[in-house]
Amino acid sequence: MNITKPTLLLNKNIVCKNIERMAAKAKEFNCELRPHFKTHQSQQIGEWFREYEINKCAVSSLEMAKYFFNAGWTDITVAFPLNILEHTTVNDLAGKIKLNLCVESLATVQALNDFLVHPIGVFLKIDAGYHRTGLGAENYEEIEDILIALESNNLITIKGFLQHAGHTYQAKGRKEVGKIHDYTSEKMMKLKEHFSQEFPDLIISNGDTPTCSVCENFDRIDEMRPGNFVFYDVMQAEIGSCRYDDIAVAMACPVVAKHPDRNEVIVYGGAIHFSKDRIEKDGNTIYGLIAESGEHSWSNPKNGWFVKKLSQEHGTIHVPDEAFDSIKIGDLLYVLPIHSCLTANLMGKYHTHDGEEIKMFQYRS
Amino acid sequence: MNITKPTLLLNKNIVCKNIERMAAKAKEFNCELRPHFKTHQSQQIGEWFREYEINKCAVSSLEMAKYFFNAGWTDITVAFPLNILEHTTVNDLAGKIKLNLCVESLATVQALNDFLVHPIGVFLKIDAGYHRTGLGAENYEEIEDILIALESNNLITIKGFLQHAGHTYQAKGRKEVGKIHDYTSEKMMKLKEHFSQEFPDLIISNGDTPTCSVCENFDRIDEMRPGNFVFYDVMQAEIGSCRYDDIAVAMACPVVAKHPDRNEVIVYGGAIHFSKDRIEKDGNTIYGLIAESGEHSWSNPKNGWFVKKLSQEHGTIHVPDEAFDSIKIGDLLYVLPIHSCLTANLMGKYHTHDGEEIKMFQYRS
Repeated sequence: MNITKPTLLLNKNIVCKNIERMAAKAKEFNCELRPHFKTHQSQQIGEWFREYEINKCAVSSLEMAKYFFNAGWTDITVAFPLNILEHTTVNDLAGKIKLNLCVESLATVQALNDFLVHPIGVFLKIDAGYHRTGLGAENYEEIEDILIALESNNLITIKGFLQHAGHTYQAKGRKEVGKIHDYTSEKMMKLKEHFSQEFPDLIISNGDTPTCSVCENFDRIDEMRPGNFVFYDVMQAEIGSCRYDDIAVAMACPVVAKHPDRNEVIVYGGAIHFSKDRIEKDGNTIYGLIAESGEHSWSNPKNGWFVKKLSQEHGTIHVPDEAFDSIKIGDLLYVLPIHSCLTANLMGKYHTHDGEEIKMFQYRS
Repeated sequence: MNITKPTLLLNKNIVCKNIERMAAKAKEFNCELRPHFKTHQSQQIGEWFREYEINKCAVSSLEMAKYFFNAGWTDITVAFPLNILEHTTVNDLAGKIKLNLCVESLATVQALNDFLVHPIGVFLKIDAGYHRTGLGAENYEEIEDILIALESNNLITIKGFLQHAGHTYQAKGRKEVGKIHDYTSEKMMKLKEHFSQEFPDLIISNGDTPTCSVCENFDRIDEMRPGNFVFYDVMQAEIGSCRYDDIAVAMACPVVAKHPDRNEVIVYGGAIHFSKDRIEKDGNTIYGLIAESGEHSWSNPKNGWFVKKLSQEHGTIHVPDEAFDSIKIGDLLYVLPIHSCLTANLMGKYHTHDGEEIKMFQYRS
């Protein structure tokens, strides 16, 4: 392939290994895998999941649900608090597929009861420790009120309790991920137990790639919804969710300038390609790591190289002394992204090493 | 207009006032205005500039140059270090328009000399203090070598010295912007002077919205290339480049959840809509401010309200006590972005208050 500008490369073998590993793990624990498709946002990559007997997915918007419905996905959870303003799309989709929505307030349920005309499943969005959003996991009173309001609607099947332990993204290592998993799972199980007499069929759905990748106790979790694991990224490797060679995407960036006096190389590849997510590592703020590229894939990150700064189209790469002279204007550097979800969302398509273009959800045009 | 999901609203009156003000200023100082179109990236908005006798523009990529060429722009500077891998596009465009490119190394000029088949203009990209990229403004020796190498090519017209004082984005107030402008302009003028005997026709082209908005001494600057001023944003208002009511874009975001215990409201509107640029203000990290919306525009930001956190689709808004109860699920909040360039680039289109959709450059599909 002739790469001339920032290009998001995808290694299909790694993607499939990542899916296979997660599918096997879910099976081992008798836990349903409902992968979150907001990371790859691609009908074509969605097909690769079907080879591992996966036929349910989660998405982050009703529009994304429509996109995957158009590719034959008929059991979709929108894992985001229901936006009642999109009632037309809800009814449109609910008439065609098994659509599951998330609610976390009586106000939302009342609006839903007012506009709903087709059957849907509903999860209660629970906050089991992340504190971004959701009903407090011990807020039994409000949860009961919502369960009762949902029960009164014949079109609604109450599916269960859904949580996302997003604070694992701040975890320093696998042990901390494990602790978060134990803490949040315990809360979710107590909640399920509390309502088990009145509502015996409710399930627990847990998300987040770190716990799903690292932890080994899912016996009482009914469903897992990781998304990022399909590609992984530097943040996940640093948390311990994956090894560096599990990262399935890298951005090829042309070198456009060199600054030997400060060990910096400028590439065409900036905030409009990567987003601005970053990590702190060894006292540096890092916006990406650099891998060597072979003919069909890329290597682990090169020691001492990192993306130091991003502006709109410029990426500033720190390069160690001994490597500096080997870089030439017009070379390509391969950047492993900090956060693959945001990077993929910005790029809008992927290229495989053998030149195939893989399309994504185009919601902008 | 029926807004049901995150929607980037644009106030055409404010845009035109911003263009008019900058055009008048450039005229006053006999300085050519070559606006940078990477902020709005829209052929339609480009047309609004023509009403102020502007017929030259700057862009940040060769593809964006093609997009504006297709709308009739025939004098375009690509204000980014030339990416030699895109030689085919360079020649394609150079055969059709007045194309100006930026170089900053002999290696790039040698490659350019090897592939160029049509006439172009060339700027030397100068670093006058920002230290992102460019030739050091006092690096006369290397600059001379490059000038000589450029001169040897009949197809090349050497246009002058181009710099971007991007460090004004970190400035705390107008005074600091003024200091940066004086410092960098002085360096640019010395550089021009140094080569004025050998190369009498070279111009100085300065970029960046803060200096072009704030400063009043452009007498010896030949060209200004601000981009962000067309919309401005919270960062620019905080620097002092504009007033809050000069901000021409706001994102309408539906309220999906409320957390009274921590004064937080969750909106549909996250990192995939805003990007993750942020500022520090009054001890808080801020990802956006909230404005009241009238029928045809929006107000200055509301006191004490701010975007506290962004994840992929979630925005967490801090709301003061006294206002909390007035917010309802399904309301729209109007968020003034921290960095309008990255926000526009993510959204891919605009809507005016009277429901017109304004299209942007679609490079992803």
